[in-house]
Amino acid sequence: MGMGKMITFEGGEGSGKSTQMAFLARSLERAGVDVLTTREPGGTEGAEQIRALLVHGAVDRWPPMSEALMHFAARVDHLEQNILPALDGNTWVLCDRFTDSTLAYQGGGHGLGLDEISVLQQLAIGTFRPDLTFVFDIGVEEGLARAFGRVGSEDRYERMDVDFHRRIRETFLQVARNEPERCVVIDAARGIEEVQQAVRNTVADRFGLDLGADRP
Amino acid sequence: MGMGKMITFEGGEGSGKSTQMAFLARSLERAGVDVLTTREPGGTEGAEQIRALLVHGAVDRWPPMSEALMHFAARVDHLEQNILPALDGNTWVLCDRFTDSTLAYQGGGHGLGLDEISVLQQLAIGTFRPDLTFVFDIGVEEGLARAFGRVGSEDRYERMDVDFHRRIRETFLQVARNEPERCVVIDAARGIEEVQQAVRNTVADRFGLDLGADRP
Repeated sequence: MGMGKMITFEGGEGSGKSTQMAFLARSLERAGVDVLTTREPGGTEGAEQIRALLVHGAVDRWPPMSEALMHFAARVDHLEQNILPALDGNTWVLCDRFTDSTLAYQGGGHGLGLDEISVLQQLAIGTFRPDLTFVFDIGVEEGLARAFGRVGSEDRYERMDVDFHRRIRETFLQVARNEPERCVVIDAARGIEEVQQAVRNTVADRFGLDLGADRP
Repeated sequence: MGMGKMITFEGGEGSGKSTQMAFLARSLERAGVDVLTTREPGGTEGAEQIRALLVHGAVDRWPPMSEALMHFAARVDHLEQNILPALDGNTWVLCDRFTDSTLAYQGGGHGLGLDEISVLQQLAIGTFRPDLTFVFDIGVEEGLARAFGRVGSEDRYERMDVDFHRRIRETFLQVARNEPERCVVIDAARGIEEVQQAVRNTVADRFGLDLGADRP
């Protein structure tokens, strides 16, 4: 293991995780930390090609198990070719979605079950886990309203029904309860600056960093 | 389960399995059997898109575990959308490569191990197995010479080294020893008509069909 830390940003649609990840990247860089920001599915050339198969097209174009397998195929490539080399080089990795999204979307939303996805996780990435995971939690209706408000969204998942998104939210919260050391639930319904401060304070405390004063 | 039967054609490069599959399809059709011929990776629109990611590009473009996961992602789609509906409709399915190729190439050739691939198999397709599998066996050098003799091959796998192909051959034979009820090893070094007759006789005996006289 290298000395870099991996922090993942998880949550449902419209939870603001991507915006908050960019804010944290800036705070870390200001503190002199080398940062790689990346996303899943994707993050390498091959994984982005898998992403293109996953996010475009009809809502029901893939059986859920195919989706889960493709997410892990992309993840193994991303981990081996991008994340692990960065961590080994003392770079911190901030990743927009990771394994918890597969647990929540395919395991919970599509009903494959957390046990099945956990077996897949063990096969694909063994015991590798992020050092810290933020679970951005927001009411499903509010999150979807935010997400649909965006122009030109590519995402098939945003077009699925509300019950599907409820199961996803519940699964993220379940994962956070199962792994309280790794996961911190963030109330994402609050204002953007308040959330930014909560994220920064958590990282500063957890890793003993001085991330400076609030800068909205 | 429907009344159709599934027969898979497995083996290394240049073993003649694709040619022999076409011969058997014709024999079955002459006997009044509805036949679907298909291939892996592929066989559905989505699975063919995954195939394109697997067969093109540099030999080392994917980590072996990513490859294995993508093969099973494609397979689940192929099985649910194409193979199972055909079998349910009393159509026989002849498939050029199936799970045994993932065992042989990723499990044996790339060294992921048969146990790992078997766990993946259980997750992805449960207890589904073909009714009959032909393992076309041929010496590695002879098979590669035949394969490289083909013009315009798309296949990354044909460009890998000879030891890799030796491990693949050994794994196919191991699978056939592990499941002697399902697997029939065919000596593919013989002449094309002799092999054709062996395949046809095996199918006729196994399923109680009259597949007619030899027609070279």
